[in-house]
Amino acid sequence: MASLLRATATWGLFPWRGYCSRQGKLSKDFVEALKAVVGNPHVSTAAAVLQQHGHDESIHRCQPPDAVVWPQNVEQVSRLAALCYNQGVPIIPFGTGTGLEGGVCAVQGGVCINLTHMDRILELNAEDFSVVVEPGVTRKALNTYLRASGLWFPVDPGADASLCGMAATGASGTNAVRYGTVRDNVLNLEVVLPGGELLHTAGQGRHFRKSAAGYNLTGLFVGSEGTLGLITAATLRLHPVPEATVAATCAFPSVQAAVDTTVNILQAAVPVARIEFLDEVMIDACNRHSNLNCTVAPTLFLEFHGSKQALAEQLQRAEEITQYNGALNFSWAKEAEERNQLWAARHNAWYAALALRPGCKGYATDVCVPISRLPEILVQTKEDLQASGLTGTMVGHVGDGNFHCVLVVDPEDAEELRRAEAFAYQLGRRALALHGTCTGEHGIGLGKRKLLQEEVGAVGIEIMRQLKATLDPRGLMNPSKVL
Amino acid sequence: MASLLRATATWGLFPWRGYCSRQGKLSKDFVEALKAVVGNPHVSTAAAVLQQHGHDESIHRCQPPDAVVWPQNVEQVSRLAALCYNQGVPIIPFGTGTGLEGGVCAVQGGVCINLTHMDRILELNAEDFSVVVEPGVTRKALNTYLRASGLWFPVDPGADASLCGMAATGASGTNAVRYGTVRDNVLNLEVVLPGGELLHTAGQGRHFRKSAAGYNLTGLFVGSEGTLGLITAATLRLHPVPEATVAATCAFPSVQAAVDTTVNILQAAVPVARIEFLDEVMIDACNRHSNLNCTVAPTLFLEFHGSKQALAEQLQRAEEITQYNGALNFSWAKEAEERNQLWAARHNAWYAALALRPGCKGYATDVCVPISRLPEILVQTKEDLQASGLTGTMVGHVGDGNFHCVLVVDPEDAEELRRAEAFAYQLGRRALALHGTCTGEHGIGLGKRKLLQEEVGAVGIEIMRQLKATLDPRGLMNPSKVL
Repeated sequence: MASLLRATATWGLFPWRGYCSRQGKLSKDFVEALKAVVGNPHVSTAAAVLQQHGHDESIHRCQPPDAVVWPQNVEQVSRLAALCYNQGVPIIPFGTGTGLEGGVCAVQGGVCINLTHMDRILELNAEDFSVVVEPGVTRKALNTYLRASGLWFPVDPGADASLCGMAATGASGTNAVRYGTVRDNVLNLEVVLPGGELLHTAGQGRHFRKSAAGYNLTGLFVGSEGTLGLITAATLRLHPVPEATVAATCAFPSVQAAVDTTVNILQAAVPVARIEFLDEVMIDACNRHSNLNCTVAPTLFLEFHGSKQALAEQLQRAEEITQYNGALNFSWAKEAEERNQLWAARHNAWYAALALRPGCKGYATDVCVPISRLPEILVQTKEDLQASGLTGTMVGHVGDGNFHCVLVVDPEDAEELRRAEAFAYQLGRRALALHGTCTGEHGIGLGKRKLLQEEVGAVGIEIMRQLKATLDPRGLMNPSKVL
Repeated sequence: MASLLRATATWGLFPWRGYCSRQGKLSKDFVEALKAVVGNPHVSTAAAVLQQHGHDESIHRCQPPDAVVWPQNVEQVSRLAALCYNQGVPIIPFGTGTGLEGGVCAVQGGVCINLTHMDRILELNAEDFSVVVEPGVTRKALNTYLRASGLWFPVDPGADASLCGMAATGASGTNAVRYGTVRDNVLNLEVVLPGGELLHTAGQGRHFRKSAAGYNLTGLFVGSEGTLGLITAATLRLHPVPEATVAATCAFPSVQAAVDTTVNILQAAVPVARIEFLDEVMIDACNRHSNLNCTVAPTLFLEFHGSKQALAEQLQRAEEITQYNGALNFSWAKEAEERNQLWAARHNAWYAALALRPGCKGYATDVCVPISRLPEILVQTKEDLQASGLTGTMVGHVGDGNFHCVLVVDPEDAEELRRAEAFAYQLGRRALALHGTCTGEHGIGLGKRKLLQEEVGAVGIEIMRQLKATLDPRGLMNPSKVL
């Protein structure tokens, strides 16, 4: 236990024991004041509800808020923020709860503002390739809505996350190599600032494609993880649905061959839409969990978007490159059903990994390095994983240099948790040493604050602290996250 | 004269008369201290040099600094910043001086830091598609350097601007529709903060493609127009040189037909690399100035990048769309020479416009609107231009919804300047009314501060002011710009 506490003190990745800085319950009067804003049925202090809102999908220990409220509109969010802020009560924004870095844990208690009741699609400007969504609209809901328009929102982190939550996290996923991350696809944000004021980061109602007008406030709030304000609407950039789509899988004799293939495809300017790496453990888990029949070897899942004619050429080039790099096999999935099965398997990789040890919980690392450094860090990480004795698989958005180890650990086994934490921290430091980042798309949340300091250095952290202090002088917006 | 002063007080676009807030000359001791940092030959207080550094390429009145210094390395920049800041002396960063919004005018005097002597390409990571450049490296110098690598930096504002200056401005240009703006292509910045401290916005040496680590400091400094710090190095994202390139010109019977064509091409997901609009006045000027032989009508210049096979398909689709929209003619420029002549003409459009009235100066407006609103604003603007009696042409990066009126005015004619100012302000407000921005790529500089307030609203301006005050508490970094 002594070594565990020491480890926690050093890395702080999973503060799952001996950690309590709760400020205590809310007064009855304060809860009544919340009810006066949103109405009785939209406030809860029931233990089960608080528990449900105190954690995300990660291993981070549940830290419940003192109350959960469901505002119905932005005016209510604004009044809630003002109320909480004036009373010194922490505010924690909550979307779908599908985060992976403990971003919703109520470390200091406070009021969780669940934004899922605000789920309207406010405005579609098809000719301008843009849409405005409230924070309860999820990625899949938006794409279902868009079906008839010939447009789609391509940023796809796997989970059916809320789009504003994705903006808050700086999410990306499998399509980023072609369409960019959420950062590249947010045109404007409506934000309730900590004191309740309403900010439109690019000006109210604006949805231009580019601007050089003043400081980039949109960029500042994307990825701020709820620590600067509550995102109550997002204007997103849409893309035309590709005329045709083809997917493929390809197994390789080594990690190096799979990564070399990725670099060659990018260098050849083949406009690949997705290029995903899965190690042999992950492939094996997917074969079992999702009924695939893939060769158990380091593998790339690829997808190409374009006109039928353009696709034929992309396919040919990609296949040539895989062969040049010694691919073991190559298999196209031209039909939608087959393709959907493949990507469902990739998106269910998290659950496939969890199925390796029923009853255990998952933790996904999230480093991102310059592509040229991918082979060495993947090989080193594989060795570290074996040396650690942990159960883990590797998947990656290799076109971006981003990969995840999905560690499957027993949350009741303190020693195993310690090993998982040590492994994740070591991997983060490896990535930093290779000019990479400790998080490509999951955010800093609770567990990577120490790594963030190493990543951006003392001056960078100081500037971030100053920005936080400027926008949230009382430190009440999602406290203890990021910094 | 009274009406002129009133106009200036209202709009503040061209503060060319009765405007002086200079703080007076620098002391001899201070100039000696500057020399002690950079060496005697690298400091100048000669009137001609000061004049040369007091203006950019726009109509904004020359406002010379009190001294110009040429640091040779980042340590010197840091010492200069600390020296000036501690003594309360304004600091104005200077690159190639090719800005269009008076961003280098020394409104309060001070020290102009000319960064062009720092012109090394520090690091090329070809496999990672990234490069690190000092602030004196221009766009063309970089692309010349990259020639053998198979990579290029596509952001192209026309002028051979310094890349760090482009980052400071939030520049874009003709390729943005395909490759994004400079904002999308900066991975990391080295910044000397006002007090002399050195910040690496994404952490020192890092050049990953994406990250979710903390607040987006890179995004905050891109487009900050030298008001938050001095950019002393930029890590840029590179792209593979396209296998083949084809350009085309196409004349239309109306502005509406040209814009409809643009929207249709984007909707069809044809990956057009450039799509530029020129009105008939601009085409006429280009025909004369650049020896083109284009039909005098609203025209699109297009360019496509890709493999030969992919190009053939893109060309065919684009041509079909232009015909569908009633194009008057369509002409391919497949050979490099012909293509280069076309783009040289487009990039020299500024000078072609100036040649319409020898001895006059140019001012380019820079609004950007949602694409669907382009036809109406282009038609309205054409009417406004005719009503104003001003000489002006229109060119636009219509794929982004961004267009420029190049006004050619006599700087000695106060009444004409007033009309130009009124026209530019009216156009800015038209764009804002259509959910657009007053500046797509030139920045706010001196002339659009009033429009910025209207664009982002009171809360947006207040947040920007707070950010400025946080990073530059003494208000000495390029004062009177942006805010």
